[in-house]
Amino acid sequence: MLGGRSKRAGDGRRLTVGGVKLPQVVIVGAGFGGITAAKALGGAPLDVTIVDQHNFHTFSPLLYQVATAGLASDDIAPSVRGIVQPDPNVEARMATVHAIDFERREVQVDNGPSIPYDWLVLAAGAVSSDFGIPGVSEHAIPLKTMADATRIRSRVLRRFEAANANPALVDQGALTFVVAGGGPTGVELCGALAELIEKVLAKDFKHLDVNRAQVVLVEMTDVLLGTFSPRSQAEALRDLRQRGVDVRLGVAIQAVEMSAVHLADNTTIPTTTTIWTAGVKANPMADWLGLEQTERGEIVVLPDLTVPGRPEVFVIGDLAAAKDRHGKPLPQLAPVAMQGGRHVARSIKRRERGQSTRPFRYINKGTMATIGRRAAVAELPFRIRFGGTLGWLSWLGLHLVFLIGFRNRVVVLVNWAWNYVKWDRGNRVILTDDTD
Amino acid sequence: MLGGRSKRAGDGRRLTVGGVKLPQVVIVGAGFGGITAAKALGGAPLDVTIVDQHNFHTFSPLLYQVATAGLASDDIAPSVRGIVQPDPNVEARMATVHAIDFERREVQVDNGPSIPYDWLVLAAGAVSSDFGIPGVSEHAIPLKTMADATRIRSRVLRRFEAANANPALVDQGALTFVVAGGGPTGVELCGALAELIEKVLAKDFKHLDVNRAQVVLVEMTDVLLGTFSPRSQAEALRDLRQRGVDVRLGVAIQAVEMSAVHLADNTTIPTTTTIWTAGVKANPMADWLGLEQTERGEIVVLPDLTVPGRPEVFVIGDLAAAKDRHGKPLPQLAPVAMQGGRHVARSIKRRERGQSTRPFRYINKGTMATIGRRAAVAELPFRIRFGGTLGWLSWLGLHLVFLIGFRNRVVVLVNWAWNYVKWDRGNRVILTDDTD
Repeated sequence: MLGGRSKRAGDGRRLTVGGVKLPQVVIVGAGFGGITAAKALGGAPLDVTIVDQHNFHTFSPLLYQVATAGLASDDIAPSVRGIVQPDPNVEARMATVHAIDFERREVQVDNGPSIPYDWLVLAAGAVSSDFGIPGVSEHAIPLKTMADATRIRSRVLRRFEAANANPALVDQGALTFVVAGGGPTGVELCGALAELIEKVLAKDFKHLDVNRAQVVLVEMTDVLLGTFSPRSQAEALRDLRQRGVDVRLGVAIQAVEMSAVHLADNTTIPTTTTIWTAGVKANPMADWLGLEQTERGEIVVLPDLTVPGRPEVFVIGDLAAAKDRHGKPLPQLAPVAMQGGRHVARSIKRRERGQSTRPFRYINKGTMATIGRRAAVAELPFRIRFGGTLGWLSWLGLHLVFLIGFRNRVVVLVNWAWNYVKWDRGNRVILTDDTD
Repeated sequence: MLGGRSKRAGDGRRLTVGGVKLPQVVIVGAGFGGITAAKALGGAPLDVTIVDQHNFHTFSPLLYQVATAGLASDDIAPSVRGIVQPDPNVEARMATVHAIDFERREVQVDNGPSIPYDWLVLAAGAVSSDFGIPGVSEHAIPLKTMADATRIRSRVLRRFEAANANPALVDQGALTFVVAGGGPTGVELCGALAELIEKVLAKDFKHLDVNRAQVVLVEMTDVLLGTFSPRSQAEALRDLRQRGVDVRLGVAIQAVEMSAVHLADNTTIPTTTTIWTAGVKANPMADWLGLEQTERGEIVVLPDLTVPGRPEVFVIGDLAAAKDRHGKPLPQLAPVAMQGGRHVARSIKRRERGQSTRPFRYINKGTMATIGRRAAVAELPFRIRFGGTLGWLSWLGLHLVFLIGFRNRVVVLVNWAWNYVKWDRGNRVILTDDTD
């Protein structure tokens, strides 16, 4: 037997205090919203369970760096059990939620008995949406999950290996990488791809004319970073074009095929790598929960983030159709989910004390997007903005601070320092079996 | 177009000096032997190509730490192109070798034209061998490749998640992990598994009786670390048992099933996780090359590591049946492969200068095995040995020094420092789709 010295003789019993069962909180989803809610409930007289299909939290703002070989998957994937380990009243469960019985108040999972709840927090987030454009779901790779990021990394590196072995493939678009969507994800991915190719792969592939590689960014509207100020939008456009990215504004993608992308302006781009960052929709869970949804699919919530008629059910983050005080939908950003998580934790504690909930007020602390080496745009409240090196440094600092776990922070910092000083990307290894 | 500022306008032409084509060296395999040979030929008037099915070198001595969540895959997988990037005359190719035409002197690959050679270095290494024991290839996981290591990590963590969701599974062996083979790999894996379970998973799984987890090491002979001194063998056995590992010596595995392992002493161990470190055999390539093999499958070589009758073909590392001056087969260790790689590089340069080759002499600089936190055995020449903390520290230092790439070294050091100080394993994330 192992663990003779182990501190915890485990037991499956419900948490009790003086023989009284604690109220149970179930959180569905270990994204920014769910994790923040779970941590905010740590130490409270509540029996908290956080359920996710993965055993790790994905620090999604850095997925594009895993996709472009700057970081390892593990660096931005702290384990959920590790995150809540210090909180004795919080338990993590790796499980897929099959159904939720709002009458019996229990969550049905795929790998064990149903989990009863007194309070439910739905934080399942969003998934990539193809808007019904033909071929996107079959031939384009989204950048929303860790699996997506490693798939993109493998695909890009495999395309270079294939072109190196058979240069004729370059004419067929083997080295053409099309990114759909000019939001922060698309902009950051394009900047990082351009740097990976020009600074690293150009040296890796000594006999391949890497100058023939192309990164094409296709954006339906006339601007990049639609939610940013015109000045930041112009700066992002200039920086991407300086890095050799072929930015095409005001043109929609009509169809994606195995070996080409068709645009609305009747141009066709030969490529075997299309990455889809053009949009997301609420987690499909929203469709089978039987709760009221907006036309965009999010779950309708009251100002306190509860479901109408179900004051014990909260919805936060990308899954919720939360609005600001002017009735404008809140953006699908990590800070909105995190503030929502803290709000529902406070609300549950208040209600347990017999107090009423308060409406959720999102405080915009700013948004950022990085284009690449010493180039980023940061927009803070009161029209404060930085660009260039200052924007980039503030982006670095912010993301390091928010990255969960000291170890991850140090490893990421080491990787970033190495990448910056050596103009290198140390993680350019193909770890998938994917043989496309 | 990208890379306007890129330094290298690539071309597919053969390397020439003053219009004269350089002699071509093809190295098959990017393990310790192949990489060492390629680096030793860097800068020489030779056109060198190193071919491997992966685009990364696997630092195999640390695979067990990837398998036990101490390191990320990327940390011990430097890209081959990155390793040879500074050497203008060395090119890496990610390809699978289909056949070798020794008459026409060319290597046939799966993804491009055949690669002609003037000098050939076969360094394809070894693969796991099941010795024909029933069920091993179907139900046991080897620990020889990066894919094996991530599969073991996922399997172990999934078994804990399954037992946590359904504690009845523990009686069916969900938390029993059987390791076959008491060599360095088996010993290191068992020590690391025991620490992962007792120090980390015991805290992660608050409601699971982790004390019921078992790590069982099954070794056919009567000793662990057969090639080590009796004192080191005894120390390893004591340290593993202190850590709660159930070490069973002098008993062979008769069969492995999906849910049990059957031993020669008629005992049956219920388990769904059997890890096979009991033996390796030469890469299957040895069987279709048509070269003379030993009964163990390695390729017969002359004292200078060339193939009899083919002075332009060298074989090194685990693929070669190299012998010491007393005619004793050399062990299948990284140092043997690395010294062999340096030897063939020297031999090729000598022959290009019209000089004759010299016989290969392996210099044993010692062997080591780590059992866990501040416990390792190190054996140097002249009967010098350390154990305990000193052995462990020398193991750490040696592996850091040999780990290729400064960045990897720093990241690994950070991970080790974190794991040591926090009694943590930061990479306990399930990244495979494998749903067993």
